Amino acid sequence: MAFRFEIIKKDSFSRARLGSVETDHGSFISPAFLPVGTQGTVKSLTPEELVEIGVEAILGNTYHLYLRPGHETIGKLGGLHNFIHWERPILTDSGGFQIFSLGTLRKISEEGVTFQSHLDGSSHFLTPEKVIEIQRVLGSDIAMVLDECVPYPSAYEYVRTSMERTNRWAKRCLRTREETDPALFAIIQGGIHRNLRQECAQTLVEMGFQGYAIGGLSVGEPKSAMLDVLKWTVPLLPEGAPRYLMGVGTPEDMIDAVMLGVDLFDCVLPTRNARNGTLFTSSGKISIKQAQYAEDPKPVDEACTCYTCRNYSKAYLRHLYLSKEILSSRLNTIHNLYYYIHLLGRIREAIQEGSLLDFHKSHTSAYGLEKDFSIYFQSN
Amino acid sequence: MAFRFEIIKKDSFSRARLGSVETDHGSFISPAFLPVGTQGTVKSLTPEELVEIGVEAILGNTYHLYLRPGHETIGKLGGLHNFIHWERPILTDSGGFQIFSLGTLRKISEEGVTFQSHLDGSSHFLTPEKVIEIQRVLGSDIAMVLDECVPYPSAYEYVRTSMERTNRWAKRCLRTREETDPALFAIIQGGIHRNLRQECAQTLVEMGFQGYAIGGLSVGEPKSAMLDVLKWTVPLLPEGAPRYLMGVGTPEDMIDAVMLGVDLFDCVLPTRNARNGTLFTSSGKISIKQAQYAEDPKPVDEACTCYTCRNYSKAYLRHLYLSKEILSSRLNTIHNLYYYIHLLGRIREAIQEGSLLDFHKSHTSAYGLEKDFSIYFQSN
Repeated sequence: MAFRFEIIKKDSFSRARLGSVETDHGSFISPAFLPVGTQGTVKSLTPEELVEIGVEAILGNTYHLYLRPGHETIGKLGGLHNFIHWERPILTDSGGFQIFSLGTLRKISEEGVTFQSHLDGSSHFLTPEKVIEIQRVLGSDIAMVLDECVPYPSAYEYVRTSMERTNRWAKRCLRTREETDPALFAIIQGGIHRNLRQECAQTLVEMGFQGYAIGGLSVGEPKSAMLDVLKWTVPLLPEGAPRYLMGVGTPEDMIDAVMLGVDLFDCVLPTRNARNGTLFTSSGKISIKQAQYAEDPKPVDEACTCYTCRNYSKAYLRHLYLSKEILSSRLNTIHNLYYYIHLLGRIREAIQEGSLLDFHKSHTSAYGLEKDFSIYFQSN
Repeated sequence: MAFRFEIIKKDSFSRARLGSVETDHGSFISPAFLPVGTQGTVKSLTPEELVEIGVEAILGNTYHLYLRPGHETIGKLGGLHNFIHWERPILTDSGGFQIFSLGTLRKISEEGVTFQSHLDGSSHFLTPEKVIEIQRVLGSDIAMVLDECVPYPSAYEYVRTSMERTNRWAKRCLRTREETDPALFAIIQGGIHRNLRQECAQTLVEMGFQGYAIGGLSVGEPKSAMLDVLKWTVPLLPEGAPRYLMGVGTPEDMIDAVMLGVDLFDCVLPTRNARNGTLFTSSGKISIKQAQYAEDPKPVDEACTCYTCRNYSKAYLRHLYLSKEILSSRLNTIHNLYYYIHLLGRIREAIQEGSLLDFHKSHTSAYGLEKDFSIYFQSN
């Protein structure tokens, strides 16, 4: 499959960069946020709605699709794009994260990992080679290597052992990869330990992948630790490959990470929050169920031009939420994804205009956050 | 509020007629099916999707909206149309049906009915005057009188007592009605008793309403009893007013009822079935969860041109259903409502072309049903 990443512009005050990611299913500009389509659908929305919101690429979960309906079934039905009626780029994770968070009775060996399905208890054995095959059959545009995401906190020795095995698995993924396969991204692990992160990054960069993910973050560690890991790791990565911060994060996390050199994000936060009635606005988060909105005729965010804000009051959204109506999840998801996608759009604009630091400051102050901006003043 | 009903064409073989219903929120052609928007939303869909499907008018449930968010709240927010972002006609029921099916500890007196909310146990007292006021505040286009819907079977004496009280309530609704109020429809009760149905119809017709509903059907009585009630009752109703069969029904029920002179229908069947994975097709109903569809690349109905059938396979719909995804309810609801709305469209076309009996026969045979068509051969 065709895959190209080109840097369009570099920020002069931070490590942020504007890039172009090209795949067989179209290209998009980074920094970019990929909504999570866990089981072959970004929960509650149609592909047409995603396009209207401005979504350019989505993530699919290999673990979920492998267990149900099964990658072979999806393959027979023309691949994941055709199955779910989404024509733009799809990145699939390797399943590693879910095996370790959802699977039970798992046993890791050098060869791979055995686990029981969270759906029916059936037993499965996945190897680095197998997860590449699954992602090949799914027909994704960007595939991830099989990794172990260690919990936080974990003993240093375990983090090292696991990271070294994940590196050996990455090598096997690379070896089994065929010419026509999806682009393959490595995943840097190593917990919150500087030497492990750096050793891992160097090892993987030497192997040579089309992109590099930073994994094992946003798993409970302090926010400062996440930023530290990015500061240590990103400078070791090749400029010409995209950097993907897996499972992150809040709007603030993303702005911070962009300034530290990250290009791609995915996170369930906007979609999951939406279903729980928590909405992002230009002045912070609100909980739509609060009594103060019972007769509020205004939209969630008067500065927002999403379908939800153009047509519905906070009072109606509160009513739908309290009534457990399906439309509540839909309208809230549209709003939150629009917020995320347009936040990334504004970040890209700011990089283009050389005003990213100002943008960061104004976002931070609108959200009432205090911040030390000195961490971003590093040479590129 | 403006309200007009005009007959465009009468069928020569049956009592079916093509009519035009005009309201302040636009007009539509009958026979028509109104999807149920119980709590201020046709479950899982947006108004734009309803319009795309071809829906021209919807029903709102007074009982639900009165309890939550409250009609006063909806009134303050500009009325039900504005609250839910639906610009076309809305018919609201009186709440009678839900008070008797969902409310608990209810006590009926001549004055009205006391009941406890199914949501929080709070106590409420509704009178004929109050339900007119509620529907006025909601701003619906067509309002219904407060009625008691007796269960099937019920003792003859109770059905008579209840019917007579419902008639007195109808009179009070009519008296309290103001010039600018929604059009007001009466509801004919009387169980499965010919004399009671006919007495009720005559009494209400003498009072003079803008439309007449036949209530108390589809509550467990045999299908033949429902058709009998229509055969006895409809001929007593004025030609120039619309006839509304409440809570009905299956595709077959609607075709039968149209041939017996009914103009309007509402029913939760297409939307509820959709959420339960039961889909209507041109050759009968299917359950999408069946294993036979696991790898079926074809749409639900190859003869259907709805959004769901244009873009998704049965295999994907089965996967979404088994995965309990919100998109499952959406795509299934779009398909089932499209089936209903287009069925009514084909019925209207057949009346226009004078081919309704042929249409009925071909539908009956496609569904593998046996039928005695003689009941429809009655003079108009």
